[in-house]
Amino acid sequence: MAIGASPIQAVRWDGRRLAVLDQTLLPAQEAWLSLAGARDTADAIVRLAVRGAPNIGIAAAYGLAMELAARPSLGALEEGSEILLASRPTAVNLAWAVERVRTAALGAGPSTLASAARAEAQRIHASEDAASAALAAGGAAVLDGARTLLTHCNTGALATGGRGSALAVCIALAERHEGVKVLACETRPLLQGARLTAWELQRLGIPFALIVDGAAAGLLRGGEADAVVVGCDRVAANGDVANKVGTYAHALAARAAGVPFVVAGPTSTIDLATPTGDAIEIEERDAAEVLGFGGVLVAPADTPVRNPAFDVTPAGYVTALVTERGVAQPVDGASVAALVAEPAA
Amino acid sequence: MAIGASPIQAVRWDGRRLAVLDQTLLPAQEAWLSLAGARDTADAIVRLAVRGAPNIGIAAAYGLAMELAARPSLGALEEGSEILLASRPTAVNLAWAVERVRTAALGAGPSTLASAARAEAQRIHASEDAASAALAAGGAAVLDGARTLLTHCNTGALATGGRGSALAVCIALAERHEGVKVLACETRPLLQGARLTAWELQRLGIPFALIVDGAAAGLLRGGEADAVVVGCDRVAANGDVANKVGTYAHALAARAAGVPFVVAGPTSTIDLATPTGDAIEIEERDAAEVLGFGGVLVAPADTPVRNPAFDVTPAGYVTALVTERGVAQPVDGASVAALVAEPAA
Repeated sequence: MAIGASPIQAVRWDGRRLAVLDQTLLPAQEAWLSLAGARDTADAIVRLAVRGAPNIGIAAAYGLAMELAARPSLGALEEGSEILLASRPTAVNLAWAVERVRTAALGAGPSTLASAARAEAQRIHASEDAASAALAAGGAAVLDGARTLLTHCNTGALATGGRGSALAVCIALAERHEGVKVLACETRPLLQGARLTAWELQRLGIPFALIVDGAAAGLLRGGEADAVVVGCDRVAANGDVANKVGTYAHALAARAAGVPFVVAGPTSTIDLATPTGDAIEIEERDAAEVLGFGGVLVAPADTPVRNPAFDVTPAGYVTALVTERGVAQPVDGASVAALVAEPAA
Repeated sequence: MAIGASPIQAVRWDGRRLAVLDQTLLPAQEAWLSLAGARDTADAIVRLAVRGAPNIGIAAAYGLAMELAARPSLGALEEGSEILLASRPTAVNLAWAVERVRTAALGAGPSTLASAARAEAQRIHASEDAASAALAAGGAAVLDGARTLLTHCNTGALATGGRGSALAVCIALAERHEGVKVLACETRPLLQGARLTAWELQRLGIPFALIVDGAAAGLLRGGEADAVVVGCDRVAANGDVANKVGTYAHALAARAAGVPFVVAGPTSTIDLATPTGDAIEIEERDAAEVLGFGGVLVAPADTPVRNPAFDVTPAGYVTALVTERGVAQPVDGASVAALVAEPAA
């Protein structure tokens, strides 16, 4: 099928300011934030107005570049880097992007500090766009026989450059074959699946059904999906995958149902400095996210909460790791290292 | 620890009318419905004002008895039975309780039809209360070494006679040992865990934390729970268990983490006429439950939905099936049949 031509973009750079679609207001409202420096960019990341590991990296890169345009100094570079790095601990792209901009700025003279940082942020943005297209094609090849794909969270254009990661794979497959459908998990607590993935799929005209996260395992057991495809927030050196909370249960259910569990993400999410998933810090977020639903308090007041934002799926459950540089299959230390070591195509 | 003495009761019989605590309004409001016949009892079951397999059975039994008190005829018996049986397809207690009352009424003369039905409903109610106490003690013995228990949905006094099924096991364990804690899954789409289990645990003074359903697998993998204990809506002859959607993923995660997955329920949930889990009809409920909560829409309008209310956990994943008549361990056709065949203690 032909997929709707109007591309969805969540992060737009106009040469001076970064415009981001405020994802906390979707699908009810399409409102844009205009960001001007490190502090407001970090705030937008903290409150999830900008989200998705690749988009967080892109936004943080521009945030640091804008800070240096306003205050071209080493002090601003250090301060801006710190503010941005502190905004979310689990996504490795954030640290990777900030470090790239920082290195570019440090390598430039005082008079070109700001322009070097801006150019590097734009390179990151362009390479994430290209990565999305490449990994979508690779993922569609891996999953060529699948017609119903179960996915989690939002991994579309709202999360990354280009068309996304896991959702870009679904889109590419729908372009190749008739009859491709998506089962989209709502993704509690923040409902990125219900709010964002449903919004994107509706705009794209791809048939889908929304399900609660807990329904995935039973539907997989019943043969109602041919594969699971998800994104990733961080991939450890051994291939363990940190992704949105709820992902690991889908991996277990895919294994039990005998269907592939595919992880799609740019190589910028691979972190060789993290040996295994157990070394990944799992962000615990605010209790209010669990106590309420769409702004309505549902649990009794003072209910204690555990709210890990991510979980870890061991490499052994991952059928394939699809990146813009190729596919690791099986997923292990050697295949992951090879993805990062190879020169980009 | 001593557990708070004030018992929670969701279904109260005053000799003429059935008062039920409207669970759709908890925890914000404690409102009671006064039911008078088959139609309004069925309506209360359909919209989940009364819920939990054992409580549905108790309410349906009284519903039919009240119908016969108002209209003591065979026509009313058939009509009332049909209305009640159609209210929810998955819970076997409903059919079991209606059949018991129907048989009692048919065995009585025309003048004692209504009183025979009422007496049978009261016997069902009393036996469910006694079953809760017996299975709580049995479950606490099976899980004697566990201190943190992960549970799903609401299986407390709001769901059954007495103190409940799986939650009654948690309470019994907390009475035996210091340091018992509960991880309560919120249980989308209807949030019975967030609204009802949290409300019960808070009243009982048992330490707990509320989590989203998708967080369970990762927390189990991290060693943060010693066991999973859940209720059941129907147990097939081979030991497969139908329970609230989301249960099967917890069973997979418990297996992967190497901790027990225990199912607690009265023998009235065992259905020898259903050979395996695949023969259990899974109720698909309204899309609105997934699209929002409490009247707040979170997904885009016209989002298509799949909403199975239950899933099936194969017997092989169930460490033990705890009932008021004893424990099946391992869970298979022979051990399940033995539970039903043995005379009650």
